[in-house]
Amino acid sequence: MLLLRRCRGLTPCGGLAPQRGQEWRRALRLASSSSSSSSSSSSSSSSSRDEQRSQHGGHTPGWKQAFAGLLAGTGAVLAYGLHHHQAQHTDAVSVHAHLSRLPVFSQEEVTKHRTLQDGVWVTYKGGVYDITDFVAMHPGGDKILLAAGGALEPFWALYAVHDQDHVLDILSEYKVGELSAEDQKKQESLRSGDPYSSDPQRHPALRVNSQKPFNAEPPPEILSDSYITPSAFFFKRNHLPVPRVDPASYELLVEGGPGGGLRLSLEDLKSRFPRHAITATLQCAGNRRSEMNQVKHVKGLNWGIAAIGTATWAGARLRDVLQAAGYGPDAARWARHVQFEGLDKDAAGTTYGASIPLNKALSEDGDVLLAYEMNGEPLPADHGFPVRVLVPGTVGARNVKWLAKITVSAEESASHWQQNDYKGFSPATDWDSVDFKSAPAIQELPVQSAVTTPANGAVVSRAEEQLTVKGYAWSGGGREVVRVDVSLDGGHTWQVARLKAGEEFSPPPGRAWAWKLWEVTAALPPESRQLEIVCKAVDDSYNVQPDSVAPVWNLRGVLSNAWHRVRVQIQDD
Amino acid sequence: MLLLRRCRGLTPCGGLAPQRGQEWRRALRLASSSSSSSSSSSSSSSSSRDEQRSQHGGHTPGWKQAFAGLLAGTGAVLAYGLHHHQAQHTDAVSVHAHLSRLPVFSQEEVTKHRTLQDGVWVTYKGGVYDITDFVAMHPGGDKILLAAGGALEPFWALYAVHDQDHVLDILSEYKVGELSAEDQKKQESLRSGDPYSSDPQRHPALRVNSQKPFNAEPPPEILSDSYITPSAFFFKRNHLPVPRVDPASYELLVEGGPGGGLRLSLEDLKSRFPRHAITATLQCAGNRRSEMNQVKHVKGLNWGIAAIGTATWAGARLRDVLQAAGYGPDAARWARHVQFEGLDKDAAGTTYGASIPLNKALSEDGDVLLAYEMNGEPLPADHGFPVRVLVPGTVGARNVKWLAKITVSAEESASHWQQNDYKGFSPATDWDSVDFKSAPAIQELPVQSAVTTPANGAVVSRAEEQLTVKGYAWSGGGREVVRVDVSLDGGHTWQVARLKAGEEFSPPPGRAWAWKLWEVTAALPPESRQLEIVCKAVDDSYNVQPDSVAPVWNLRGVLSNAWHRVRVQIQDD
Repeated sequence: MLLLRRCRGLTPCGGLAPQRGQEWRRALRLASSSSSSSSSSSSSSSSSRDEQRSQHGGHTPGWKQAFAGLLAGTGAVLAYGLHHHQAQHTDAVSVHAHLSRLPVFSQEEVTKHRTLQDGVWVTYKGGVYDITDFVAMHPGGDKILLAAGGALEPFWALYAVHDQDHVLDILSEYKVGELSAEDQKKQESLRSGDPYSSDPQRHPALRVNSQKPFNAEPPPEILSDSYITPSAFFFKRNHLPVPRVDPASYELLVEGGPGGGLRLSLEDLKSRFPRHAITATLQCAGNRRSEMNQVKHVKGLNWGIAAIGTATWAGARLRDVLQAAGYGPDAARWARHVQFEGLDKDAAGTTYGASIPLNKALSEDGDVLLAYEMNGEPLPADHGFPVRVLVPGTVGARNVKWLAKITVSAEESASHWQQNDYKGFSPATDWDSVDFKSAPAIQELPVQSAVTTPANGAVVSRAEEQLTVKGYAWSGGGREVVRVDVSLDGGHTWQVARLKAGEEFSPPPGRAWAWKLWEVTAALPPESRQLEIVCKAVDDSYNVQPDSVAPVWNLRGVLSNAWHRVRVQIQDD
Repeated sequence: MLLLRRCRGLTPCGGLAPQRGQEWRRALRLASSSSSSSSSSSSSSSSSRDEQRSQHGGHTPGWKQAFAGLLAGTGAVLAYGLHHHQAQHTDAVSVHAHLSRLPVFSQEEVTKHRTLQDGVWVTYKGGVYDITDFVAMHPGGDKILLAAGGALEPFWALYAVHDQDHVLDILSEYKVGELSAEDQKKQESLRSGDPYSSDPQRHPALRVNSQKPFNAEPPPEILSDSYITPSAFFFKRNHLPVPRVDPASYELLVEGGPGGGLRLSLEDLKSRFPRHAITATLQCAGNRRSEMNQVKHVKGLNWGIAAIGTATWAGARLRDVLQAAGYGPDAARWARHVQFEGLDKDAAGTTYGASIPLNKALSEDGDVLLAYEMNGEPLPADHGFPVRVLVPGTVGARNVKWLAKITVSAEESASHWQQNDYKGFSPATDWDSVDFKSAPAIQELPVQSAVTTPANGAVVSRAEEQLTVKGYAWSGGGREVVRVDVSLDGGHTWQVARLKAGEEFSPPPGRAWAWKLWEVTAALPPESRQLEIVCKAVDDSYNVQPDSVAPVWNLRGVLSNAWHRVRVQIQDD
């Protein structure tokens, strides 16, 4: 067997079998030593990749989870141990196979091996690998079968966690042959390269939580500087590469309906339906996840407090489009959901998808848009150009971007993100006990607020005498924020903040889609050397934020809405 | 001046002027000494009366508040002190007037004195009193002017707090004459006696928080014994005497509208509109107020955890009735609210009133009923016979009973209970700083849960080995409870309770009007001698209950929905 750490092409580079065992030991040692720093940047980066990996039904643990399991001494350790044992066992065989020149296979032959019964073969950079025995050990679950009979490259381009030396080590153990030169050429010409290569440029001020797919948030103080968040600074939350869509040939399909379905061009959407504009806040389910990570490690992108923003969106009302397709109030007799599919897709062609309740979609008060404008301009590429769904009051994940298809149905979307992600669980639920069917898909979000300035750890001069604290507050479901309480002493005493809304008039009940910015100016307490600033909001259903993080902690790190706490030092001059 | 403590009729009973000063001192001493026991039964009983006193716009502090102020050394002490001083000053005059026989006045003469300019005169048991100087000192505010020119008896019958010796003492100081014998006779024949005399009989198991008006809740364990709360045990929350309504002559007025208004008999309601039935939970805004009282005294009835119940209600949809009166979706162009008036009224004829948002009333999904049935039978008298409004998902106070009138309007109800009560405030807000206009009227309630069994302070035997904990959970706005977490160790570790719904199928989003009962059976921890049982619920907008009471404490003691805590002893055998 070969040491392949420096042989990235996996082409033969000499027999160095004795070192292979060292590499394995080193990989396991590395995994063990990283167990103590769950919040390191590499950890957050790998967790960010997890978030977009498992697109298919069923509980498919990601690398992060497997590593967590590995480190926690659970089943994954056994899997890796078993793998190690098997690797040792096949060592001599592999080395022998290599030294004796591996057979050459055609793509046609490889394609015959797509099941555990027939064997699972894949190709990578000209090599052919029989990974049948590895399937059960794959930290990403049986998702690996998507690649069966074909090339690994497009999947690994999507899930960059595979770009690690020890992953190549593992793969090399399963090499059984070479792909024919003819088929290698064909594959190369088919290969699309980096699926993220056409992603748009982004503003350098954004704080990047993952590059591929791109997930980033603005510096928090930008949020309170402007009631409307400029599009460039609006948090980006992509699950997959950004599709580039030609607006001239764009077509939206509204499936089924009494009229047998409806196909609408961008121009149709703009000309056949009244333009409707709303100002609405969007928030990622994982906003403030980093605070949950401080209690106990969770799986997901390590968002700060700025995975939230407010924009003015304009487009056709979904209600109008559904009515044009023949879906009126009668649809409620048999249907309960409206499903959306995006044009963003993974290497296997699986598109991003989600659904919302039918009554939200059909209600005149629901204000659901097929939006083609953000802040007075065409949607930016990162925000769904040319058309996205905008479901005000509802978690970002249902606001499907690059919208391709709408389906009215009795069932929720079957997509991974509707069924096995974006759900909340008890702090008592772990990855061994979680049953995704036991919790509802997140739709409306709970009441939320955060301090945008001063920043945690800031130092203020006592000479200032006064401190101005600013922040945002919002609640899901169109519930208006009616009060924000701010404390400078960790929650012992409170004062009521001044609220700033976007418009003069107050919205009708249940249609307050946009946040309130808030502000408090308070005298610095003469006796304090440190302030613990806390904020908590109340919405018009008088729901409040929970006091602390631990009791709302959940394994996926969503719905993080405990009181926000910021510590500030007062410096005597 | 006279000592009148034993002369309840306020008829002359001899000059004992020297003792009067002693009485005043004694009254003030009593007031002072009671300051330390804000949770005594007399305190809770007087606070219960407060709740139904102030029916008119403006901030009218009740006796409780005045006493709280008195005890806290605020303005009320000044008022009482001033009053004391003035009383001393008028002492000689009164004694002189009495000794020299007081003049006789006709009712006509008394009726001329109804303003501060003309003087404010009242009658009580044959005496005539000029209370002009007392108006500014009345702990109940200028509400006292309602009685100007007339008899005090009907007001005092309604507001039993006046039934105290020192109140009669105060009144006696203002006596200026006698009512003519002829007018006394007329008054007696008009006098209706106790306005609560026609209140219905109630079940003796109810825990009474106030008798007049009647406010009571069942023992908590009854709630978890039956998904549907039997009507007899359903909490009673009356603001005024129960009106006795003849169903044959009952008439509901729907004001205005394109058709010029609509008058409906009970038979009209039943025959002209489809009967619609829903199972819905009603909760008083003050449920669990007693827990807020433990943090700091609040004003209001000292409810435990059982001011909540679930019933099946049936009646006409409000939406259908409004449409019959000509109010369709177009009404939203000019109107925002639907106001209700009850037949229950105070001595001045002011009826109970409230309003709800128009979109809730008109929405097909709103399920607002004009209910004439509760649990399959005509509404009981305490629950609004023959017709009440049933606004599912909305605080009890808007579910107006004994419904007399419906008004579609641009403005909310002007009633005291809509404008100056049933609103939530910051813990930082006190009776000196409160601005009732700054908070919205409570409509939808926040997520709630409580442990119904075991009771706080219960003792369980270690031989039992297991403990079963039961409770209820509910959220306002049709938000379904999706999870209840239960802890036996004060909130450090949690387990997920089994939920019990009333029906097999799950309600559409936003229409989950009824509670979930829940249950957990857990092994007794071998090492514990005491358990702190805690429950917290999550609704389908993933709103959660706050951890602790103090940060949601508010001066009126409403919206008490922190984690519920119950301490239980484990007894070794």
